[in-house]
Amino acid sequence: MTGGAPGTTAPGTTGGGTGFHGMWRDLLPIGRHERSGGYRRYAWAAADTDCRAWFRQEATARGLAYEVDRNGNQWAWLGDPSQGGAVVTGSHLDSVPDGGAFDGPLGVVSAFAALDELWARGARPAAPLAVVNFGDEEGARFGLACVGSRLTAGQLTPRQAHELRDADGVSLPQAMEAAGHDPDAIGPDPERLARIGAFVELHIEQGRALDLGGHPVGVASAIWPHGRWRFDFHGEANHAGTTRLEDRRDPMLTYATTVLAARKKARLAGALATFGKVAVEPNGVNAIPSLVRGWLDSRAADEDTLAAVVAAIEQAAHERGARDGVDVRVTRESFTPVVEFAHELRDTLAGLVSPDAPAPVLPTGAGHDAGILSAAVPTAMLFVRNPTGVSHSPAESAAEDDCTAGVTALADVLEGLACR
Amino acid sequence: MTGGAPGTTAPGTTGGGTGFHGMWRDLLPIGRHERSGGYRRYAWAAADTDCRAWFRQEATARGLAYEVDRNGNQWAWLGDPSQGGAVVTGSHLDSVPDGGAFDGPLGVVSAFAALDELWARGARPAAPLAVVNFGDEEGARFGLACVGSRLTAGQLTPRQAHELRDADGVSLPQAMEAAGHDPDAIGPDPERLARIGAFVELHIEQGRALDLGGHPVGVASAIWPHGRWRFDFHGEANHAGTTRLEDRRDPMLTYATTVLAARKKARLAGALATFGKVAVEPNGVNAIPSLVRGWLDSRAADEDTLAAVVAAIEQAAHERGARDGVDVRVTRESFTPVVEFAHELRDTLAGLVSPDAPAPVLPTGAGHDAGILSAAVPTAMLFVRNPTGVSHSPAESAAEDDCTAGVTALADVLEGLACR
Repeated sequence: MTGGAPGTTAPGTTGGGTGFHGMWRDLLPIGRHERSGGYRRYAWAAADTDCRAWFRQEATARGLAYEVDRNGNQWAWLGDPSQGGAVVTGSHLDSVPDGGAFDGPLGVVSAFAALDELWARGARPAAPLAVVNFGDEEGARFGLACVGSRLTAGQLTPRQAHELRDADGVSLPQAMEAAGHDPDAIGPDPERLARIGAFVELHIEQGRALDLGGHPVGVASAIWPHGRWRFDFHGEANHAGTTRLEDRRDPMLTYATTVLAARKKARLAGALATFGKVAVEPNGVNAIPSLVRGWLDSRAADEDTLAAVVAAIEQAAHERGARDGVDVRVTRESFTPVVEFAHELRDTLAGLVSPDAPAPVLPTGAGHDAGILSAAVPTAMLFVRNPTGVSHSPAESAAEDDCTAGVTALADVLEGLACR
Repeated sequence: MTGGAPGTTAPGTTGGGTGFHGMWRDLLPIGRHERSGGYRRYAWAAADTDCRAWFRQEATARGLAYEVDRNGNQWAWLGDPSQGGAVVTGSHLDSVPDGGAFDGPLGVVSAFAALDELWARGARPAAPLAVVNFGDEEGARFGLACVGSRLTAGQLTPRQAHELRDADGVSLPQAMEAAGHDPDAIGPDPERLARIGAFVELHIEQGRALDLGGHPVGVASAIWPHGRWRFDFHGEANHAGTTRLEDRRDPMLTYATTVLAARKKARLAGALATFGKVAVEPNGVNAIPSLVRGWLDSRAADEDTLAAVVAAIEQAAHERGARDGVDVRVTRESFTPVVEFAHELRDTLAGLVSPDAPAPVLPTGAGHDAGILSAAVPTAMLFVRNPTGVSHSPAESAAEDDCTAGVTALADVLEGLACR
């Protein structure tokens, strides 16, 4: 652990904590892409390093004990972590390519702001409290989501992590080392998890359920099972201007058919299926591709439905591949089973957030660090209303009042869990 | 013009000209990509600069007068260009992404080798002869093919050329300048074209017509009209795990439908249509794309058919776009009308190549610098057999005997045109 004894200074009273608006203003320019207006905060790259420096500054300015764990996740402690039964809140600071400002950062900024609010109320926690920033949640750079929490929870082995590479061939350990973090230390961290009594992640909603119901804040019930499958369509590179149609083995045709099949199979099953990422070789205007690689993201309410949808998409790909002379190989790159958040904690949260009326409890299709940790720790999530439902886009937004309501709700939860 | 008086040294006799095999061996490693085995020789980048250094070395080693014209094309002269009626041969040295070794370089290497052969025969040209390397034929970097010959022929204005940019935003003039060429001088070069009596480009065949007919060498009749159209599919970025299918505006669906429509419309019309290049934004696995950009390459035997095929593909794109909530914009990036090679020169070539039997005369779907120049200069092409027909791929190949036959045929042509 780095820093002084935890909790010797009151949060929000040292002059360094800048409040919700100040924190938001400081984060806003980091990694923002001028043309798209979206964020490009990729794990262990420059913008991520700047975000991490911001986290450290906010932690130390509040007199919180700052530490980086073996997997590169950042922690800011109030109270003695070795006491056990800690209440931890936070989220992540990295982004998808051209992501919005809220997905991740809202949870971290709200965590610091909720601590400030707790202090302002005069509430003094009996249990240790921590704010956390999990590394590499989106998986934008290395293709696997929630790397920081997966490593900590033992759901990703160091050996598997060493095989992750970005588009430039840089491995995860190389990227960590370049950013000043020792990659040899990565691995499961059961002692750290054993200290946590509850983890609560606040997140912008990534759909319109709260908006349609007229609620500023809600509580998560479950995360749909979801996964990523890489479809490699191997054809034969050839000249687009001279090769007869009947002599071609064009993998773009097989890919296109698979994209349309994915939509149809998902629709029929009430599931989700998306091809959002493609890589083509050689990717020349006048060259029939040798390889089209497409990534399928698919999710469903239960695992059987998800498996059936993916199997149907695979079958459609193979059938068309046989017609096109294209070899189709499918690799499951990640899979997250259904996550049912701890019912007791969920009900406690719902009561704390909305003591007078039942708070909305809703499932989500999005994966989160909270989902990963839920296997080892009682875990819950708060959602803040998203008026358009748009996420993973520069157009992602939340109203200021709703952000404030989120901070208040999170402070209520922390007070209820840690100060009783 | 650089170098000494042209033609003061016999080609192939100075010790610097290394013969067909030596030239081929020297070129082979340049710009070869280790993993794919294909070539990445992009205009004005490092591998192209190395190819150009090779050309200069082969020119000067033969005592040919070396010069670079205002548009960056390289010339090696035997005899006095100002005499007029020059016979010029050559091709290009750049490649498509992961292209083969033959497309382009075979014509340049064969040109030098044919000059050597002419000299060995004791033939002494009455007309000036030149070997040329046209810059940026494939258009792999700046998206427009035949930039060097187009500029020279006035088919691309300097203003248009200044607007060409590569994927990193580097403009063509910036790239030329970085490679040591003055970009301010680019523009039409009618005086240079007026000196040329005939241009003959030798090229590997990019189909299987010669192989099917059992001929090592053939003569081109015409180049199909062809062009490139950029399809921009604008949708809305959103989270792949949380956005309901009915709330999506997913441009990947519209793109996929357009790819399949292109194939179908081309098949029905006996034409060619290919989507070989795609760019997706943000290109994240769990993000519905905001933009899918696909490039259509289409060709047909006549311009009416080509126009009808492209119009039908556009219509299919717009129809599906309306269903998907996706805005479709189509931009014609280049268009080359049908090229009928000069009949007299074509017949002369056919007689010179195969005095005893009619040489095969065949059309091609591929664009060439010869097609660009044909508007201003009597132009012809020789094709060398390609046993698989595969081109624009590392698997592109030609038998050694056929390459030798190509050099002999080209020497026959040069002798017939320049030494009579």
